[in-house]
Amino acid sequence: MEFPSKLIESAVGELSKLPGVGKKTALRLALHLLKAEADTTATLAEALAKMRFEIRYCDTCHNISDTPECSICANQLRDQSTVCVVSDIRDVIAIENTAQYQGMYHVLGGVISPIEGIGPSDLTIDSLVERVTKEGSEIREVILAISPTMEGDTTAFYLSRKLRDLPELNVSTIARGIPMGGELEYADEITLGRSIVERQRQAR
Amino acid sequence: MEFPSKLIESAVGELSKLPGVGKKTALRLALHLLKAEADTTATLAEALAKMRFEIRYCDTCHNISDTPECSICANQLRDQSTVCVVSDIRDVIAIENTAQYQGMYHVLGGVISPIEGIGPSDLTIDSLVERVTKEGSEIREVILAISPTMEGDTTAFYLSRKLRDLPELNVSTIARGIPMGGELEYADEITLGRSIVERQRQAR
Ligand SMILES: [Zn+2]
Ligand SMILES: [Zn+2]
Repeated sequence: MEFPSKLIESAVGELSKLPGVGKKTALRLALHLLKAEADTTATLAEALAKMRFEIRYCDTCHNISDTPECSICANQLRDQSTVCVVSDIRDVIAIENTAQYQGMYHVLGGVISPIEGIGPSDLTIDSLVERVTKEGSEIREVILAISPTMEGDTTAFYLSRKLRDLPELNVSTIARGIPMGGELEYADEITLGRSIVERQRQAR
Repeated sequence: MEFPSKLIESAVGELSKLPGVGKKTALRLALHLLKAEADTTATLAEALAKMRFEIRYCDTCHNISDTPECSICANQLRDQSTVCVVSDIRDVIAIENTAQYQGMYHVLGGVISPIEGIGPSDLTIDSLVERVTKEGSEIREVILAISPTMEGDTTAFYLSRKLRDLPELNVSTIARGIPMGGELEYADEITLGRSIVERQRQAR
């Protein structure tokens, strides 16, 4: 595609690096910004840069946070005895939006994937084990809320093995209301909420 | 949707103001940027701001440009006697990509739309008439390459009336290979290219 301006060519080039944004969509977005108030672009550019450069991750659960301890971990009204393990920040947001869960989280940062070269040490698994086993831990249950894909199941299996020396700890998985092979984040809120409420004990 | 961070909430909010980008897509884009190198976000934010604040419009044809005269107007190898009138910059890019047209352009900046409150004076119509009528003008033909929607047809009709006192001037419209009611920018390159080559004299 030829552009009459290097400035727009560069903007379209950068926009089309975003997932799901082709050249035509990128051009549409760029021209939209050109037509809109200059402020719209300034605010967008600033919000993106600010997010990327100022974001933090919670020291405890690895959720995104504006502070060293995220608002969920800091909330004393939540159930400190239950930890919901998810692969991704998106999943925290999806589960929070069901309003069916009042416990804590642990964000793995992905799933075990030999094909993509992601091993257990690339995830926050040691940090989870440490949370659960450390002196005075209140954690009584770990819910594995990992997408039921092959890689997700591998990760859940690995985690349940890691945790099986803790007989006091209940390890459950979210109910398989979610279709096999489906991505957790695409589930509607009712299905996802129910799958948390009807969670099942993980076989181990 | 609840977010664990004001920074991400603000980024998602700004992204979802873009056309065709809902909250879920915006979140996906934001999380993609968080996972990618910080440089990706910095380059994107800078390219958008630079585009918006440094872009110019060609003094002659109102196409986007990095300089007062755009690269098409400045190109002496192009046919100075033919001006293709389009509503939008997107259409210039679409027609250029057919590689079927070697003349000049004139970007109206929209179409006449009483519903949206866009009248002839909101478009660059006077500038077009001035280009065509000014002393020493080489322009012999004006091609109306406006999407064949109701508003596009109104605009084309208005223009052909404006230009009918110039008997030396040929006024044509692109061939209706484009389906009625279709948007010009969505046409495939072959259909659009042919509609330029087989343009028809505008009835007036
Ligand atoms: Zn936390
Ligand atoms: Zn120009």
